[in-house]
Amino acid sequence: MEPSKRIESALEAAVARATAAPAPPQLAHAVRHAVFAGGARVRPRLCLTVAAACGDDHPELADAAATAIELMHCASLVHDDLPCFDDAATRRGQPSVHAAYGERLAVLAGDALIVHALETLALTVPQAPQRAGALLTTVTRATGMPYGITAGQAWESEPEIPVAEYHQAKTGSLFAAATVAGAIAAGAEDQADRWRIVGERLGEAYQVADDLRDAVGAEDELGKPTGQDSSHGLANAVSEHGLQGAKERLDRLVQEAVDAVPECAGAEQLRAGILQEMERVLPESLGRSAA
Amino acid sequence: MEPSKRIESALEAAVARATAAPAPPQLAHAVRHAVFAGGARVRPRLCLTVAAACGDDHPELADAAATAIELMHCASLVHDDLPCFDDAATRRGQPSVHAAYGERLAVLAGDALIVHALETLALTVPQAPQRAGALLTTVTRATGMPYGITAGQAWESEPEIPVAEYHQAKTGSLFAAATVAGAIAAGAEDQADRWRIVGERLGEAYQVADDLRDAVGAEDELGKPTGQDSSHGLANAVSEHGLQGAKERLDRLVQEAVDAVPECAGAEQLRAGILQEMERVLPESLGRSAA
Repeated sequence: MEPSKRIESALEAAVARATAAPAPPQLAHAVRHAVFAGGARVRPRLCLTVAAACGDDHPELADAAATAIELMHCASLVHDDLPCFDDAATRRGQPSVHAAYGERLAVLAGDALIVHALETLALTVPQAPQRAGALLTTVTRATGMPYGITAGQAWESEPEIPVAEYHQAKTGSLFAAATVAGAIAAGAEDQADRWRIVGERLGEAYQVADDLRDAVGAEDELGKPTGQDSSHGLANAVSEHGLQGAKERLDRLVQEAVDAVPECAGAEQLRAGILQEMERVLPESLGRSAA
Repeated sequence: MEPSKRIESALEAAVARATAAPAPPQLAHAVRHAVFAGGARVRPRLCLTVAAACGDDHPELADAAATAIELMHCASLVHDDLPCFDDAATRRGQPSVHAAYGERLAVLAGDALIVHALETLALTVPQAPQRAGALLTTVTRATGMPYGITAGQAWESEPEIPVAEYHQAKTGSLFAAATVAGAIAAGAEDQADRWRIVGERLGEAYQVADDLRDAVGAEDELGKPTGQDSSHGLANAVSEHGLQGAKERLDRLVQEAVDAVPECAGAEQLRAGILQEMERVLPESLGRSAA
């Protein structure tokens, strides 16, 4: 099955389990809205791509890993959009979950998505206990504390923000989980350290690309209000290095990711795919020159 | 080791893992505040008691299950106290997490506690894959949707609340997880159905005892503002059955829990323990007559 179809189908199965009767109808709608609102599925695609490069001998494990990572990503967006954080009324051009269903259901939808992300992996324990155990702790490390998304978001409440730790925890951690989990799902746990570097560099590259898009004000392309990072007073790649410097940094990060790809059956195809994907995420007005 | 020491020591290990450097200091404080603020540890004690009655041949699994269940309970309290839900300034006589650390860190502390609850179980997969897998799905079922705490809490956002489903999901589910997980941790998964009934009846009994305490206004004993349930306009045992009727209902639920305890090494001791515990939770002014 084509990767994006595999991802949508696996997400649908997980969401169907969570929203089945007797789930409260509004919460079920809120969860569905959070997961199926036009996300680019960048992390689960990366996860499946790495699994494919490593042989993908247990596709149901790769699907579960990709699903868990995307559900965690959706949960973090729902909670990030809450009034006490970004207070965002829209997300990807649609109402945010709290705008559509209220703050209570947005809190609960995020909570439920975290639970079901890990449940999706827990259900694979009987078939492949060793890999499933490693997949679970890969995803918890990327989302909890001290290294994961919640830690990353919490740095914004500190008087001083260590910029590298902040970006690594808030963005890099889940990208690293995507590559590492893809490798573990396909039995390549011994190469996890290399795959972690690939994921971390790509996570940082996406962050820089996001800063570039934010700076050139491509609001229409992005579907959310631009200029949000600078309104938090946080350092970003463009304010730190300028447009040209940020573009150079992006190219360097992508090259480091490509170089870190370990030898495996699909290494060449994966390297080409990374370059192609990075061209896709650059804003048009920057000439999509990252490759 | 004495049960309450086992529980505090296992919780301390889980919290220490989550709050280790480089965790953001404020989030680390908030998580510690959420877990170590004088909770009665009713659910983890129940879990260890059931594990002991079933032989407790893998005490580290029972500890992990008890820890996961208590961390989930703490997470639900932190999110329940948020301004958009109960807007509670205090909990157990101390400032609630959002009152002490702000709304953002309260949202994130709850999220992190959910992740680390399940991580605690995920870390046991290598030693005992079969039991750990069942423990994980027992806890996710009790906390997610459609049967768990998030579903229970979300019923409050519906125009009509099905009272039985609501209480079962909001309170009963985690008590049922406590008894079922205690049994699974000790290898007694074949008796899980009976243990589920024990947990469900006890969960309902605690709810009725809570309603009774609420009704007699034992604010000092409880450490939180009383009368909160009736302010939600929700049915409770006292408003539905009167004081005497609620007390009779409590006695009946406790008896059903005792009767449902399956035959096992420690069955008699457990039955006596249930009766003793239920006497403890009744408000003094009601003569603690449940036994």
